[in-house]
Amino acid sequence: MSDNIKKIINANSQYAENFGEKTKLSMPPSRRLAILTCMDARLDPAKFAGLQEGDAHVIRNAGGRASDDAIRSLIISSQILGTNEWLVIHHSDCGMETFTNEKFSKDLENTFESKEGYSINWLTISDRVESVKEDVKQIRNHPLVSSDVRISGYIFDVKNGKLTEVVKG
Amino acid sequence: MSDNIKKIINANSQYAENFGEKTKLSMPPSRRLAILTCMDARLDPAKFAGLQEGDAHVIRNAGGRASDDAIRSLIISSQILGTNEWLVIHHSDCGMETFTNEKFSKDLENTFESKEGYSINWLTISDRVESVKEDVKQIRNHPLVSSDVRISGYIFDVKNGKLTEVVKG
Repeated sequence: MSDNIKKIINANSQYAENFGEKTKLSMPPSRRLAILTCMDARLDPAKFAGLQEGDAHVIRNAGGRASDDAIRSLIISSQILGTNEWLVIHHSDCGMETFTNEKFSKDLENTFESKEGYSINWLTISDRVESVKEDVKQIRNHPLVSSDVRISGYIFDVKNGKLTEVVKG
Repeated sequence: MSDNIKKIINANSQYAENFGEKTKLSMPPSRRLAILTCMDARLDPAKFAGLQEGDAHVIRNAGGRASDDAIRSLIISSQILGTNEWLVIHHSDCGMETFTNEKFSKDLENTFESKEGYSINWLTISDRVESVKEDVKQIRNHPLVSSDVRISGYIFDVKNGKLTEVVKG
């Protein structure tokens, strides 16, 4: 067992010992909220947005992008579990701003001797304000997204922890 | 501005006021760890696995499934940002166990007058132990995933907060 896993198992035991009232939480998010944001290690959406267990769906991927899979998750979030307010949150100093599809796919070909990377859209970001706007628009225009869902867009600053509005919901 | 957004903005102001040393965190996860888990509102991976900001990538979608997008994110996580240990964590009482592709797509057709839902694999779950095993295997066998990455599989119990190992890393 790796040190990482040992630490996780220890932390989890403590968490479970103090589980308390959380045993009574039900499946649908109580605040009818879903947040789509980046997997970046510096982001903790529960902490920076003040969420408790049970409050909100949290969807995360590289970039916090409106990928097909993020949209799959959002549609399930609203149509199965009743959320009606979604936030798209990208952030400063994102890893997705540091490379291009072409360069990364070439590097992967060199490493893995596979051309598979060229068939993947890595969803890199060149302008984070534009990427938030684009992603809100893409979700908004999806045929299976209800017009009743409010969608807003934000940028999180990893240097000071602040959220700044980009698209009003 | 909705009540949800007001609450988020207030919580965020407090978070930013106490940002402290987090301003110095760098982009690569310090524990070289990535976690793939479900968007479920009852799950807070930072809390149940004892993660601090800066420690680990967290990827979340409906079910915590090894979708193309989750695999995109994991490849970026290791090849751009150096993670070498990944955990796939599904959970009890998952919303993905409550419906089928066919039924959901039909419901969406009735609601939106669109057949778009039939073209989406919703990645439902019928057996959570099997879904963890399948997803670990799918990631493990991807041509752009290095054999140097350790991958393990767990189930989180929403009734007591405990992680149980399904696939050893």
